[in-house]
Amino acid sequence: MNDDTFKGYRNPARAVMERLGIKVWDDVAITAGPNTFEGVVLPRSETADEYHLVLKLATGYNIGVKAESIDGVKVLGSRKADYHIPEQRFPSNPANPRVMLFGTGGTIASRLDYKTGAVIPAFSPGELYGAVPELADICNLETEKLFGIFSEDMGPVQYKALAEGIAREIEKGVAGIVIGHGTDTLHHTAAILTYMCRNLPVPVVLVGSQRSSDRPSSDAALNLIHATRTAACCDAAEVMVCMFGPTSDRYGLLHRGTRVRKMHSSYRSTFRTIGDRPLAMVDRDSFTYLKDDYMRRDPSRKPDIRPVFDERVSIVYYYPNMKPDIVESLVDNGYRGIIIAGTGLGHVNKPLYEPLRRATEAGVHVYMTVQTLWGYSQMYVYETGRLLMERGVVPLANMLPEVAYVKLCWALAAGEDRDEVRRIMQTPIGGDMTESEPPDGYMILQGGVPEVKDVFRGVFR
Amino acid sequence: MNDDTFKGYRNPARAVMERLGIKVWDDVAITAGPNTFEGVVLPRSETADEYHLVLKLATGYNIGVKAESIDGVKVLGSRKADYHIPEQRFPSNPANPRVMLFGTGGTIASRLDYKTGAVIPAFSPGELYGAVPELADICNLETEKLFGIFSEDMGPVQYKALAEGIAREIEKGVAGIVIGHGTDTLHHTAAILTYMCRNLPVPVVLVGSQRSSDRPSSDAALNLIHATRTAACCDAAEVMVCMFGPTSDRYGLLHRGTRVRKMHSSYRSTFRTIGDRPLAMVDRDSFTYLKDDYMRRDPSRKPDIRPVFDERVSIVYYYPNMKPDIVESLVDNGYRGIIIAGTGLGHVNKPLYEPLRRATEAGVHVYMTVQTLWGYSQMYVYETGRLLMERGVVPLANMLPEVAYVKLCWALAAGEDRDEVRRIMQTPIGGDMTESEPPDGYMILQGGVPEVKDVFRGVFR
Repeated sequence: MNDDTFKGYRNPARAVMERLGIKVWDDVAITAGPNTFEGVVLPRSETADEYHLVLKLATGYNIGVKAESIDGVKVLGSRKADYHIPEQRFPSNPANPRVMLFGTGGTIASRLDYKTGAVIPAFSPGELYGAVPELADICNLETEKLFGIFSEDMGPVQYKALAEGIAREIEKGVAGIVIGHGTDTLHHTAAILTYMCRNLPVPVVLVGSQRSSDRPSSDAALNLIHATRTAACCDAAEVMVCMFGPTSDRYGLLHRGTRVRKMHSSYRSTFRTIGDRPLAMVDRDSFTYLKDDYMRRDPSRKPDIRPVFDERVSIVYYYPNMKPDIVESLVDNGYRGIIIAGTGLGHVNKPLYEPLRRATEAGVHVYMTVQTLWGYSQMYVYETGRLLMERGVVPLANMLPEVAYVKLCWALAAGEDRDEVRRIMQTPIGGDMTESEPPDGYMILQGGVPEVKDVFRGVFR
Repeated sequence: MNDDTFKGYRNPARAVMERLGIKVWDDVAITAGPNTFEGVVLPRSETADEYHLVLKLATGYNIGVKAESIDGVKVLGSRKADYHIPEQRFPSNPANPRVMLFGTGGTIASRLDYKTGAVIPAFSPGELYGAVPELADICNLETEKLFGIFSEDMGPVQYKALAEGIAREIEKGVAGIVIGHGTDTLHHTAAILTYMCRNLPVPVVLVGSQRSSDRPSSDAALNLIHATRTAACCDAAEVMVCMFGPTSDRYGLLHRGTRVRKMHSSYRSTFRTIGDRPLAMVDRDSFTYLKDDYMRRDPSRKPDIRPVFDERVSIVYYYPNMKPDIVESLVDNGYRGIIIAGTGLGHVNKPLYEPLRRATEAGVHVYMTVQTLWGYSQMYVYETGRLLMERGVVPLANMLPEVAYVKLCWALAAGEDRDEVRRIMQTPIGGDMTESEPPDGYMILQGGVPEVKDVFRGVFR
């Protein structure tokens, strides 16, 4: 038995495997109480819990079976021979641009072999080449695993490490940077990197995958090809998200880091530009730019990297009948900034007016965004908005609540004083606030209807 | 001078009007510091603030000018003669169904005369008939103003009054009920009324307006016509939202009270059914049903009205780096229920696991929804989801966060004990959780692209 026999299984999970004679990659039928589960025993990561066995069912879905609930098992065979990542040397071509792929964790980095169906991590250039040979036509790929965490656990430590990694690679003359990231908070990371890394000379492209590469409908390989191509060749030197386009797997979309949001918990076309058009479409051969106000690639440009973050900021997501304690607790607990996601044009109920006045008088920054996600906070329209502004609440136009949150975390650390913080917040950066919304910036179509491509073409005709 | 000369203006605002000789409906050029504003002085409601004069500019927008900032004024004329609501007796027709319109406040009730451009409240049947004569072809309209508040101030007192009003009118044999409502929290009210008023014999239709009727693009009259027709004739006996459809003013959409959300802060087509199709399209002549699983109109059905509400519930809208104090403060402050709007399939970061475990052990109900809005909370997919479930967090499929919030407020008051509350929360009511999403349930198209009508037709072909 080699080291991989129980790969990733510890304590109770490993004990039950040893007791019942189950190995990783075994084809098994497990009985647990009234249920029987048939599938392949998958290896687990080092950080996995110690209580579950994970099976891949015939449907392609993975399930966890609690070790202590397992009554019996029948081993039907082994799939070990089927599951491997063919590793080869990544072929270097002096004519190709150099691209750095940073790994942070998440589906795209951990399960990539879309041809063999393997779920074991594929991350070195050689492993990636074995799984997605097209990469070698695009660039000379280097990889560096910065950390391996679920994206909901991303925070300032990781943001700073990424910004510093970006600075380092730009200094070394990289053609572009790809960041593999779990999709849950990919848009938050894209937004904070827009603030931490300004004046970029080359593209920084965040990419993830909604379906792991062991499923037939995986978007992992295609997203990685599109992201790598963007880093290598795209003319837009901004922080962007590169993910699956709606309605077709023929192209990906490039979204500005400040205008993008995850809008579906499981669909592949989950990332959507809100209140604007995506920056560009990308396919295997070309880029179709949908906007022209982007920062052009210019390797001689000197980046402005400020990896700072103040953690004392919270989002207050308004709901009817909200009580003053929601605001008061934040002030009592030492928060320095509050982003309200208000209703309509930026409203909350009257009982919050006084707590908000006390908060701003105590020096807490309070900004208003809209929970409709689309549209602007316009606090001059109704008297209630004006009353909130008199209490020190500042509207942030069409900045998304999540973007306002990371921007305030950054501004509180980057700004010298209260006025400077406010000036930063109210100055558009990387498209986080725009003068107006294009007519096709609201709920761009999806699913069973004409290609988004055709719609965008219509717009540009 | 009659009572309307300074209508709604008090104290400093009224003082400046008297001093400078300004009357309501005057066409004025006001100088305030470096600015000059030309427009018509509008009357104000009794609840308006006392510090601003409100002008309608030539653009159709209203602005508030602070009374104390006004340096001078030139009166250019008066529009009084142009602004009036023609009031006539509402013609009763014994053949028409009886519809009750409850007023709660908001744009639709306060500014309705789309022909003359008046902004003064129009609410009695006679006033409404003067403004929208089509109403008399649809029904015999009665009106009752329950309250007059901004919709962000709606809460349990108003929800209960509405539920009791609905019960009363059903008892009296009404054909249907329309509720005029501000749009900010219209969807929250639609959701809570779905729970408070079950087993309805006739339709209950919430309607609002995104543009007041003094603007050329107002949706007030059309929305009211569609809502009244729905109450009078529609076959669906559910709580619904009737608002402007996307891409065209030729029809309105009927949305289920539990699946609808305000998605744009200013567009007229702001209300969207999330993760499903709207229930029906409505135009002046007909209904086009887009689903067939609705409760049919049956005047003999006995409604189940339970107007109860527990206020000790909050929404935790997850953001990266969230700290334990956010959950701990809620528990310390006596909250009995927490709805998490998590990332992805329903995730939060690890530092929240222990506070959440302590919360559920202390008897707090904690449910998981998704901040992507579209898609399902599926906590079996990743280990992190399973760990949260072991700590007592319960996923709510594709229930919207706002809907889960009002449902839990209701369930905590309606349920006998902890198990019963949980059973209520996990039982689908009025479509708040569905087995699956139709392919056209995600980001139905909008703006400059084919009619949604044609898309729906495609689906039904």
